[in-house]
Amino acid sequence: MIDVSDALSLILERADARPPAMKPVGQTPGLVLAEDVASDIDSPPYDKALMDGYAVIAADMRGGTAELQVLEEVVAGDTPREVVVSGTATRIMTGAPMPDGADAVVIIERTELIESGDASTVRISDDAVEAGQNILPQATSLRKGDVVLRAGRRLAAVDVGIMSEVGRHEALVYPQPTVAVLATGNELVPSEQMPGPGQIRNSNGPMLCALADKAGGTAVDLGIGRDDEAELSRLVQQGLEEDVLVLSGGVSAGVLDLVPKVLQDAGVEPVFHKVRLKPGKPMWFGVAPGTAPNTLVFGLPGNPVSSLVCFELFVRPALAALAGHQPGKQPTVEARLARPHRQRGDRPTYFPAVLREDSGETLVEPLDWHGSADLPTLARANGLAMFPAGRLGFEQGEPISVLLLD
Amino acid sequence: MIDVSDALSLILERADARPPAMKPVGQTPGLVLAEDVASDIDSPPYDKALMDGYAVIAADMRGGTAELQVLEEVVAGDTPREVVVSGTATRIMTGAPMPDGADAVVIIERTELIESGDASTVRISDDAVEAGQNILPQATSLRKGDVVLRAGRRLAAVDVGIMSEVGRHEALVYPQPTVAVLATGNELVPSEQMPGPGQIRNSNGPMLCALADKAGGTAVDLGIGRDDEAELSRLVQQGLEEDVLVLSGGVSAGVLDLVPKVLQDAGVEPVFHKVRLKPGKPMWFGVAPGTAPNTLVFGLPGNPVSSLVCFELFVRPALAALAGHQPGKQPTVEARLARPHRQRGDRPTYFPAVLREDSGETLVEPLDWHGSADLPTLARANGLAMFPAGRLGFEQGEPISVLLLD
Repeated sequence: MIDVSDALSLILERADARPPAMKPVGQTPGLVLAEDVASDIDSPPYDKALMDGYAVIAADMRGGTAELQVLEEVVAGDTPREVVVSGTATRIMTGAPMPDGADAVVIIERTELIESGDASTVRISDDAVEAGQNILPQATSLRKGDVVLRAGRRLAAVDVGIMSEVGRHEALVYPQPTVAVLATGNELVPSEQMPGPGQIRNSNGPMLCALADKAGGTAVDLGIGRDDEAELSRLVQQGLEEDVLVLSGGVSAGVLDLVPKVLQDAGVEPVFHKVRLKPGKPMWFGVAPGTAPNTLVFGLPGNPVSSLVCFELFVRPALAALAGHQPGKQPTVEARLARPHRQRGDRPTYFPAVLREDSGETLVEPLDWHGSADLPTLARANGLAMFPAGRLGFEQGEPISVLLLD
Repeated sequence: MIDVSDALSLILERADARPPAMKPVGQTPGLVLAEDVASDIDSPPYDKALMDGYAVIAADMRGGTAELQVLEEVVAGDTPREVVVSGTATRIMTGAPMPDGADAVVIIERTELIESGDASTVRISDDAVEAGQNILPQATSLRKGDVVLRAGRRLAAVDVGIMSEVGRHEALVYPQPTVAVLATGNELVPSEQMPGPGQIRNSNGPMLCALADKAGGTAVDLGIGRDDEAELSRLVQQGLEEDVLVLSGGVSAGVLDLVPKVLQDAGVEPVFHKVRLKPGKPMWFGVAPGTAPNTLVFGLPGNPVSSLVCFELFVRPALAALAGHQPGKQPTVEARLARPHRQRGDRPTYFPAVLREDSGETLVEPLDWHGSADLPTLARANGLAMFPAGRLGFEQGEPISVLLLD
């Protein structure tokens, strides 16, 4: 039996980022970039007007007023044809390229257009025109060749905008790991079915699929595997085609707990079995090195709460590593116990709990938990209070670390 | 011109939750439940063994040791056939139903099986057997008819487990709103294309699609609309088939800023145009009441940073409301200015900024921002520092509210 931290180290040593692949940029938010992305353009690509108005030569406005000949009108998407010289101006719209010669934009509110026949002039009254005003110079925000996004970055929606701006409609990213989920046990029936005597519905499979999806994986539901070697072997083979295989059930010491044997027969090398942890002690972990993606195989205990705790402690960090994320700290907060708590102190215990703020303090209240099958209580929890081993009683007000639930 | 908070109120008044629909439970995490979900079973459905061992009558163990006749073996999925009477025991596995008569489970480690011919007996040594031990009584975690999840709940992965447990493979939820995204402007070319003179690539469209997806919507990319009434009208009609239509560009006062006119010709009733905000002043909002889903229409300014700010302030809360979420507070934190900041003080300003922790204090550092087209700077930001209007200078150490970016 090993400690939680040692178990996690053994897992992460074997959880290399999956081979990068090109993806359409719209599908990349949340994924980790596997290349440096450089700009192929200057941005803005030209000196750009930031306001609607007139492109002028600032020196023409020294007197505070001027009447200038209007050369042309330039909108975003146009190219100016005329050069602005002293005594002239070009009507310009926000986003349009500045005409050569002009060095300032006077906003439309300061101008009055006078049309007479074919000729137009603009009367401008503005005694504070400065060269450069209302212009964004070429390459201000990026220059051709600049790296705009570095490998290792977790991509956000704004990065989709940036990649589009620099001409990328695909990017090299670490793909989401695929996660096969197999719930095992003769007692399980699908949720559509009313359980008969001695049967329970399969809640683990759908829950683990949802957890895998939310944790950045892509779940592949293998359904229910009965406690039968041939059937389990067939389903395990299927699961080993994915990056991760998560099983629930069948890892205790019961006569029908076939999972470790079936996995080893399928070539999965055991790394550890049993962790100093409550709930979740029977946790099994191995790697199938012969399979194409070096599938990581997690045998989680069959009880839903144990399954969830083991998923949070072990599978979630592994999925993050496979997706190219740097190993991070677990999302924990320190809180004060809202009421005294007693436990059997032989293993570190992860107890469903509610975190709440009270007069500026974070309190944690362990829920009245009916053992490791009690999903409805877990649904009310927003964290797992981590009680260390070796102590039976914890006092109200004691500081306790709490692992946040998603 | 109206204030940000008034603008948001006008939007939320018109953002009713979309009609609920049935979805497979695996697709519900992140969505809001639109019905109470009750259990159709007791859980556990029977008194359940929590350990591998022997089901016994606790009173038989008063002496600390006993030798009991083994009646049968019951595993998870089985139904016990024999009644345990004094002097007998049933071999039982974790998760299996307790046989009638027995009231405790003794763990396997305390037992020794003695087989002789057809008969088996078990020798047990345990001086602390209590009635009820290692048994989870029927209906401990839920009782038939109990509401396990209430309407209005934001569903999490664990709820998928619970719904599966109570026989639900579908649930009534508020569906994700669909969000049509249309970038407008003659200057725009798709990201695959090298922009010619006076052109820029469309970064807004892909960015807004990614934002809509991450904010709980389903984006429908309508591509680029040129500044042409007939083309815009056609694309707007397409957009009005979705719950939300987000346009970028074309809402300033330029001659080609056709969007408000085209929208009104399409029957979209204007609610407001222009917000006291920087960047983002030209923001337009209306509703198309004749269309089936009462489409909310947002005309965002064409500059990417303005677009993003307006999305965060207005579109994101609207999408949450359409998806059935209760209006929440914006995700803001208070931080101290890491360096002095100056601005033009005519409108409240949302400035790209980096939040960081320094000796236990949260600091906010406004980035060196090159105007509202500067996406690369925005990519480094993790928040928008909110500088109130009417002041030009802010001192180092001043408390500033910061809107968190996703």
